[in-house]
Amino acid sequence: MKVLVINCGSSSLKYQVLDMTNEALLCKGLVERIGMEGSVITHTKTGMDKFQLIVPMENHKDAISHVLMAIQDENHGVVKDMSEIGAVGHRVVHAGEKFAHSVLIDDLVIEALEECIDLAPLHNPPNLLGIAACQELMPNTPMVGVFDTAFHQTMPPESYIYAIPYEYYEKYGIRRYGFHGTSHKYVAERASDILNVNIDDLKLITCHLGNGASVSAIKRGKCIDTSMGFTPLEGLVMGTRSGDIDPAIVTYIREKEKLDQGVANEILNKKSGVLGISGVSSDFRDLEAAAEEGNERALLALKVFAHKVRFYIGAYIAEMNGVDAIVFTAGVGENDIGMRDIICNDLGNLGIKLDLVKNKVRGKEMIISRDDSRVKIILIPTNEELMIARDTYKIVTGK
Amino acid sequence: MKVLVINCGSSSLKYQVLDMTNEALLCKGLVERIGMEGSVITHTKTGMDKFQLIVPMENHKDAISHVLMAIQDENHGVVKDMSEIGAVGHRVVHAGEKFAHSVLIDDLVIEALEECIDLAPLHNPPNLLGIAACQELMPNTPMVGVFDTAFHQTMPPESYIYAIPYEYYEKYGIRRYGFHGTSHKYVAERASDILNVNIDDLKLITCHLGNGASVSAIKRGKCIDTSMGFTPLEGLVMGTRSGDIDPAIVTYIREKEKLDQGVANEILNKKSGVLGISGVSSDFRDLEAAAEEGNERALLALKVFAHKVRFYIGAYIAEMNGVDAIVFTAGVGENDIGMRDIICNDLGNLGIKLDLVKNKVRGKEMIISRDDSRVKIILIPTNEELMIARDTYKIVTGK
Repeated sequence: MKVLVINCGSSSLKYQVLDMTNEALLCKGLVERIGMEGSVITHTKTGMDKFQLIVPMENHKDAISHVLMAIQDENHGVVKDMSEIGAVGHRVVHAGEKFAHSVLIDDLVIEALEECIDLAPLHNPPNLLGIAACQELMPNTPMVGVFDTAFHQTMPPESYIYAIPYEYYEKYGIRRYGFHGTSHKYVAERASDILNVNIDDLKLITCHLGNGASVSAIKRGKCIDTSMGFTPLEGLVMGTRSGDIDPAIVTYIREKEKLDQGVANEILNKKSGVLGISGVSSDFRDLEAAAEEGNERALLALKVFAHKVRFYIGAYIAEMNGVDAIVFTAGVGENDIGMRDIICNDLGNLGIKLDLVKNKVRGKEMIISRDDSRVKIILIPTNEELMIARDTYKIVTGK
Repeated sequence: MKVLVINCGSSSLKYQVLDMTNEALLCKGLVERIGMEGSVITHTKTGMDKFQLIVPMENHKDAISHVLMAIQDENHGVVKDMSEIGAVGHRVVHAGEKFAHSVLIDDLVIEALEECIDLAPLHNPPNLLGIAACQELMPNTPMVGVFDTAFHQTMPPESYIYAIPYEYYEKYGIRRYGFHGTSHKYVAERASDILNVNIDDLKLITCHLGNGASVSAIKRGKCIDTSMGFTPLEGLVMGTRSGDIDPAIVTYIREKEKLDQGVANEILNKKSGVLGISGVSSDFRDLEAAAEEGNERALLALKVFAHKVRFYIGAYIAEMNGVDAIVFTAGVGENDIGMRDIICNDLGNLGIKLDLVKNKVRGKEMIISRDDSRVKIILIPTNEELMIARDTYKIVTGK
C-alpha cells in the first residue's frame, strides 16, 4: 500500500508518498506561500531532479489539488491514479488529553481536534484545513491523524501537573503536554533496534535538538517526562525560544519595556534562545563560526544551550534511576559534532563517555560512545514522516 | 565579642545576640506588626521563659530601640550596655552583582544596595530601614551586610544567563541570582565538617526545603548553580509559589482570567505551589494528614514537590559530574521524614541510598544514608543567624 503523508502549516505544506511494502520514499515535496502571491510547489520524485511550479494557490484545498496532480504527473508522479493511495496520514500538533495514539479520522475526531484549537491556535487550524481539503478531494480514502502530543500522554501526573491553582488544569487544560512526540517515539524505537534490546528493557533519553528542541525520558517504551510543556516554549534553550525562565521575568519585562501581551510572547518565541543571547543568529553554524572568530556572546549562547541539555539529561537520569542510552536527533543533534562533544563532556562519572573519533559523523545512524561507556550514545536521524506513514498503515490495515 | 544579628522584614524584625567566643546564642526575639496597631516584641533569653511586651512601634527605629532595651534589660538582657555589642550583622536579601561576599557597611555599600531595590522591591527597603535605624542608634558600632545572593555569585555565566535578548541582562540586570545563599553556605560548610573532608574536595547538593525552597550545586565550596532565579519564584515547587512553569502560562492565565499584572504575580507567588495543587494547605503536615485520609490532590501535591526536588538533584549531578553528599535542611528538609523518603526513593543506581531507620529523625545533624550508599545523605538544621554572626565577626575582627 502507498501512503500519502501531509503536514500542513498556515501558509505551507509538506508531503511525502511512501510505499509501505518496503517503506521506500517515492516522492516528497513542499508547497509554500499558500494564499499569498507567488505560491509555489516544489516536488521531487526519488532519484530525479526537483520540479518546481509557480501557480496561484488560494487556499489549502488548491494546494492539495496541486499535490495530487504532482504525484499523478506523467513524468514526476509516483502513482497512475489516486486509487493507488491507500491512506493519508496527517500530522496534527495538538490532541490535548484526547488521544494517546494515532487514530482513524472521523467526525468525532475532527470535533475533538477543533476543541484543541485553543491550546494550539497557530497549528491546529491549518492541520484541520489540510484534513478537510483531503476529505473533499479524496472522499473514499481513509485518513489517519498522528499527533505530536500523543506519545507524551503516558507521563504520570507528577510530571505533567504544574504547581498552579488546580482549577486552571480543570478549566483550561493547563498542564505539560510535550511536543515532537512522533520524533521521540521514532528514535526510541530505532534505538531499541540498533541496540538489539527490547524497548521494554530500556531507559532512554532522546534529545531532539533542532531549531525547536526537546528532551524526553522514555522508560520501557513509554514517555515519562519531556521538556516542552503547555506550549513548545518551555524547556531547552532553542534557536529563538527562551525555554525555561523565571516566570516573574515575563511580567517584569512587559512592565519595563511597556510591551503588550502579543509582543511579549513574540519576544520569548522569536527573539530569544541562542539568537537572543548571541545577537548573531539562531543557526548553530553561524554561532560556531562567530565563536571561533572570538565573538564571546556567540560562545556564551552555545554554552548556555549545552548547559541546559546536560541539565535535563541529569534530571531524567534521576527520574528513571539510570539510563541505558542517550539519543541525539534533529538538525543540531544529527549534524553538530562540536555541540554533541560539549554536551557529553565531563559526564564520565555517570557512565557517559563520548568517542571523539566516532562522533565525527553527521546524519548517520551510529553508536558514538566509547566501547567502555556504560551508557550508549547514539546518533539517529529522525524521520517523522515515516513514523506517520507507519501509524497510518497500521491503523488502516490493522497490521 | 558579642554580635547582634538583625533580619528586617516590612513589618517584622528578627534578632539574635551571639557570643562569638564560643558561638553561644545569648538571646533571640521577634518584633511584629511594626507601624500597625498591636505591635509587639517577643524576647527570649537563652534558658529563660519568653518575655512579651505590647507597645506602640511606629517604625523600624522604634522597633530597634525596643530590641536594644530588651537586650540591656536588667532581667532578660544579655549585655550591661551597648558597648558590649561589638558589631551588628544585617541580613540583606539582594545585592545584585555588586557583592559576592559580606561587607562592612559604609555609604557606598548603602548606595549600592539602594540600586538593587528594583530587583527586590519587597525586601531590600526594610533591610535598608533596619540598617539606617541601627546606624542612628548605635553610631559607633560597625555594621556588616550579609547577602542572600552573595554565595551564588560564583555561578558561571552558562548557569545564570537566560536565553532572552541579552540587552535585558545589560539594561535591567535580568539573570539568575539565587537566594537562601547564607543557608546553602552554612550547611555546605557543616557537611564538610561532618564528613571530615575538605570542602575543596567535595561536590555537594544542598536542598533548602522550607516554605520557600531551593537547591544548590556546590563544587569545591563554590556555588555553580541554584534553582531560584531572577526572583525567588523560580525552581522548586514551594508552599505557595509555582516554581518552574512554561513561561507562556503566565500570559495565558492573565488573558483567560482577565487578571492585571499584580494579581497574576500574586497568584503565582501566594496561591500556587503545593497549596495551589492541593487546595488544602501550604503546610506539609496538613498535606500529609489529608493524603492519609485519601485526599488525592494533597497526595498529588506531595508527589509533584518530590518530583521536582529529584529532578534538580539529577540535573546538578550532571552539572558536577557526580555528587559526594546531598544535604537536607530547613523546615521540610529537617523535619519531614516521609518527604525525604519519597525524594530519595529509587535512586540506588545513582549511588543514593537512604537508611529508612536513620531517616526517622527530626532537626538533628546526622548522616541518614545507608553505610553502603556511595553518596552520603545528611540532615543539617540550618542556622542563617550564626552564619551572619560569623561573617560579621570575621569582617570586624579580621579573624
